[in-house]
Amino acid sequence: MKIGIVGGTGGIGEGMALRLAPYHEVIIGSRDVEKACSVSECTMAFLDEQDKVGRCIGMCNQDAVDEGDIVILAIPYRFVESTLHELTGFEDKIVISPVNPIEKSDAFYYAPPAEGSAAQLIARLLPPRAKVVTAFNNIAANRWKDPADELDYSVAVCGDDDDAKAEVMQLINTISKLCAFDAGPLRMASIVESITPLLLNLARFNQMKDVGIRFV
Amino acid sequence: MKIGIVGGTGGIGEGMALRLAPYHEVIIGSRDVEKACSVSECTMAFLDEQDKVGRCIGMCNQDAVDEGDIVILAIPYRFVESTLHELTGFEDKIVISPVNPIEKSDAFYYAPPAEGSAAQLIARLLPPRAKVVTAFNNIAANRWKDPADELDYSVAVCGDDDDAKAEVMQLINTISKLCAFDAGPLRMASIVESITPLLLNLARFNQMKDVGIRFV
Repeated sequence: MKIGIVGGTGGIGEGMALRLAPYHEVIIGSRDVEKACSVSECTMAFLDEQDKVGRCIGMCNQDAVDEGDIVILAIPYRFVESTLHELTGFEDKIVISPVNPIEKSDAFYYAPPAEGSAAQLIARLLPPRAKVVTAFNNIAANRWKDPADELDYSVAVCGDDDDAKAEVMQLINTISKLCAFDAGPLRMASIVESITPLLLNLARFNQMKDVGIRFV
Repeated sequence: MKIGIVGGTGGIGEGMALRLAPYHEVIIGSRDVEKACSVSECTMAFLDEQDKVGRCIGMCNQDAVDEGDIVILAIPYRFVESTLHELTGFEDKIVISPVNPIEKSDAFYYAPPAEGSAAQLIARLLPPRAKVVTAFNNIAANRWKDPADELDYSVAVCGDDDDAKAEVMQLINTISKLCAFDAGPLRMASIVESITPLLLNLARFNQMKDVGIRFV
């Protein structure tokens, strides 16, 4: 399967590429193609050191959309609108949103757009035939970086297209010890996204690091 | 410690009494004192069968408030306003809200009041000196019933009074394998409460039962 990562040179994007490249064909997208190529080379070199074979290439964000069967939007919430306005060709693509609209005062809090969630905003900005699915929202960015570091978390998946959701759940279950759960339609995304500021607060108020979640 | 359970004859209230009575003095409150006494007798008989000693008494809801150092509001969301209008004497009490405002269409969803969460509604209805703390929101009612059934969950605790929160966290950690986490101020309660409809949806869409949560 071909997976395009828009924002693939950010912290989470790089980590996702590292973990996906041994099993899938990964296109690391970036506004800066040189940076994408350099991250792709690092990814390949890292896998090579581990005696693993991976497939990974650096391109621009638009190429990541065009080439990917699945497109992951690994971008901060504040760049969602400007990034999506510059990109086309999302028709019939599965688009994964790990995006969380979070703000901070004395504690982190959930600050969703008028649509109800980042995922629903993304669905509004993309053509109707794009299949938006939430995933990876509640995994700390730090945890992606080291592929030797096991990700033993549950992943809640929301979306309105059942086939797209099933495909994303299958993808999730190939990564480390992640376990995908169907969390219902896309309008449930706000609950999943809002868990992230809760986890950040739990880390802060309980002297923990990179808190994640498991459904048991 | 004396723990009053308002609504102590409901499913969750009964289960809480069973699990708390071996360690604390429990006052099972109900609008129907006879029912409260009968549940209290059943609790004592059950503990006796297990060769455990417990302290448990059935009274009316107002007595549960008056006698408890900590008062648990084990009532469904739809009865919160009417129940609290009939009760007084919450000044300086620690009041635990396990209450979740949930509705259902094709999926369960979070339906909070204008205050932002059930806990904040409760704080508005009670005198300012009442110390409202959320706890137990994400544990399925079914799981309380059988004390032999281990509760191996995380419990997110929100509240604005640090001492009250610390006391509730200590109480939580005495029950089965529950593990309390400080989730910040009371205005974060909406995130904690909204996890419950997510868990109900996860159970429904993934053919699971009584799904709970662990922060890891």
